[in-house]
Amino acid sequence: MSTGLTVTGAVTVDGQPCALRAVDGVVTEVGDTVAAHVGDAHIDAGGDVVLRGLVNGHTHAAMTLFRGYGGDRPLMEWLEQWIWPVEAELTEDDVYWGTRLACIEMIRSGTTRFWDMYWHPTAVARAVRDAGVRATVGPPLIDGLDDARSRTVCDRAAAALDELAGISSRVEPGLAPHGIYTAGPATLAWVAEESARRDLPVQLHFLETADEVTGCLERTGERPAAYLESLGLLSERLVLSHGVWLDDDAAARVGAAGAVVVTNPVSNLKLAVGGVFPYRRMRAHGVAVGLGTDGASSNNSLDLIADAKFFALLQKFSSDDPAEAPAADTWAIASGARAPALHRGAGMPPTDAVAADAADPTRLAVGDAADLFLVRRDAPELSPGHVLDNLVYAADHSVVRTTVVDGRVLMRDGVIDDEIEVVAKVGECARRLHLA
Amino acid sequence: MSTGLTVTGAVTVDGQPCALRAVDGVVTEVGDTVAAHVGDAHIDAGGDVVLRGLVNGHTHAAMTLFRGYGGDRPLMEWLEQWIWPVEAELTEDDVYWGTRLACIEMIRSGTTRFWDMYWHPTAVARAVRDAGVRATVGPPLIDGLDDARSRTVCDRAAAALDELAGISSRVEPGLAPHGIYTAGPATLAWVAEESARRDLPVQLHFLETADEVTGCLERTGERPAAYLESLGLLSERLVLSHGVWLDDDAAARVGAAGAVVVTNPVSNLKLAVGGVFPYRRMRAHGVAVGLGTDGASSNNSLDLIADAKFFALLQKFSSDDPAEAPAADTWAIASGARAPALHRGAGMPPTDAVAADAADPTRLAVGDAADLFLVRRDAPELSPGHVLDNLVYAADHSVVRTTVVDGRVLMRDGVIDDEIEVVAKVGECARRLHLA
Repeated sequence: MSTGLTVTGAVTVDGQPCALRAVDGVVTEVGDTVAAHVGDAHIDAGGDVVLRGLVNGHTHAAMTLFRGYGGDRPLMEWLEQWIWPVEAELTEDDVYWGTRLACIEMIRSGTTRFWDMYWHPTAVARAVRDAGVRATVGPPLIDGLDDARSRTVCDRAAAALDELAGISSRVEPGLAPHGIYTAGPATLAWVAEESARRDLPVQLHFLETADEVTGCLERTGERPAAYLESLGLLSERLVLSHGVWLDDDAAARVGAAGAVVVTNPVSNLKLAVGGVFPYRRMRAHGVAVGLGTDGASSNNSLDLIADAKFFALLQKFSSDDPAEAPAADTWAIASGARAPALHRGAGMPPTDAVAADAADPTRLAVGDAADLFLVRRDAPELSPGHVLDNLVYAADHSVVRTTVVDGRVLMRDGVIDDEIEVVAKVGECARRLHLA
Repeated sequence: MSTGLTVTGAVTVDGQPCALRAVDGVVTEVGDTVAAHVGDAHIDAGGDVVLRGLVNGHTHAAMTLFRGYGGDRPLMEWLEQWIWPVEAELTEDDVYWGTRLACIEMIRSGTTRFWDMYWHPTAVARAVRDAGVRATVGPPLIDGLDDARSRTVCDRAAAALDELAGISSRVEPGLAPHGIYTAGPATLAWVAEESARRDLPVQLHFLETADEVTGCLERTGERPAAYLESLGLLSERLVLSHGVWLDDDAAARVGAAGAVVVTNPVSNLKLAVGGVFPYRRMRAHGVAVGLGTDGASSNNSLDLIADAKFFALLQKFSSDDPAEAPAADTWAIASGARAPALHRGAGMPPTDAVAADAADPTRLAVGDAADLFLVRRDAPELSPGHVLDNLVYAADHSVVRTTVVDGRVLMRDGVIDDEIEVVAKVGECARRLHLA
């Protein structure tokens, strides 16, 4: 059965009329108007602005469970005394419901795909499937830099990949070694091999803190980017989270390899990592850049529209230049248009189309995946005009009225069907874990 | 006619039952339950969290008209080529509607009072009156450091004060010399005298940029805080906006005088003023601190809940300490509890009550003004618990369901009666001014 969707009465960010039709999750027509089709789902946009869906490049979605738990504490105290002891007790069910809550927050903020790294990845994948969004889901690999544990850790990841296969066409399995200070060279080399052999994306925390640079030099004699290179990890399949401490040499290597760097400005500020993502340096070396919220426990929001403002403002501030990271650039980054690899994967929007549309990252074109959202043009914070500027600097998720992924309406007029149930389930999980 | 309001079924941020009654805008009962009164307006809170209203300590409310206009540009280019030429054309009507839009955004984010500095102050005051909120409204004084213009500027301000008197009991007239680099010593001395003589609050931009320090030294031979002191301006009636460049000596003088400093973190980031508000230094010198959004044209939002997150995160980042500016402190600052003078004025909440409640700035007590708002406890971003933490780090205006000022319901279930009309009127003004 083919499933059609027609959107009429929308406008572009410039206020031009825009209607579109999608069949089986792919945009088949875009124009001022499109013909009605019997049997199509229909959205009468009523003057709303239609935008391409956003991509959250780094999350630990299930950590909604920990939101507000043990906050305002030094990083290691927070991890060691608050987060890790409870993480060890999480069940598949906890992770499923925590991820469902995160999906609700992403759907309502126009985020149609995210990149996730968390325990119980099959529970994450089932939540993604049931929520209707897209995600890259990776089993974390942590061996504590102990080569003797590498075999077990890699075998477990391989088994998780097998379990992830087939859960949903909207889930892309990947590998998620936690970091170069928590996964040793044997594990990272295995990840590099598997990634190349099976064309799997790899997510890695990288240069969030300055300690990673000195630690890597001490352990390996190499600087971090050179170390990744020597392990065969630096490729266009690699998505690095944070990258606060990328120097010119590292940026050049990352850029040349075509790897993506995802900045998480809110998390970096909240955990006081001490530096600001070197966005100018990334541009100088042609590095593909994405935007992420990080997990709700270090943010505590999953609203990428709100975080786009943090990105832009932090760049202006750190560069002493109010013209740095202008609204259009910032929105392009949030939409994944500056890092087409964030759209990769079977069943996902064709990355060629994403790259071709990068000049206007708000617009959908024929052949694109029908991943989109509609924004209230009459919202007070978007008035009196300059929609794109004000999406970045004045808006948050609450301007989003309707969200569509894969041609399916996941939120209509601000309503997500199972929001109440999901919030209740997460409350039950959190109370059992003494988190709330 | 006395007007009663009863709120039942609410909870405190800690989840304890809370009901209250207000008569003629003043809280008369607070308890687990309160008796029903025939003829009262009634809010069935249905488990929502009740909170004391927030205070936006620095705005140019009517600048909603300029939202998104000429953004992402260097400060002086933006002011000289974009903002100032249009500001010269603004009518009373433009300022009225621009301020009405700002009031809508403040009402929906739980802001019950603001401190405004803008042209056509009587239009601002009428907008405040009609919107139902509270504000301190000050005619700006700018003489371009030309003493010959001082008399005219002061006479015009005095006339504006006369016009402001009696517009509304919710409007407190004040004086708003723009800055020490735009208003000369004769004007500032007159402001100091009038403020003392008539007990008027004074709003002043102060130390937003480092240039102000060097400029003041060059012109006057004194450092800025000493200069204010020598003019007789440093008093408990003075509200300084920004204060990014307050050194220890200045902070000591400001603290000793009991003046308030209002930080505007989003504006400071967006305009790249180069420094971070020295909050630790303010604490060390006992300075009263408030939070402001600044005008929508340099933010571009008026959502103080969103800006509270910017404040807390920027403080953590700049102090290299994730424990800095914890949620409870941040919320206290946003509510005006750390600067009781922000609640000052006839017809306003008694500042004694505010100070007495500062230990828990979320709670209302008998004798307080009935300025409050209700927050959806079941909002996804406030789940699964830790309401106050998540109000600061995860929430924005959209968790606010109902807002009350002076015992009158201004927003109920997210609906503000004249939102559509106000948005339309602002659109008309902006199009006439070629702003949108």
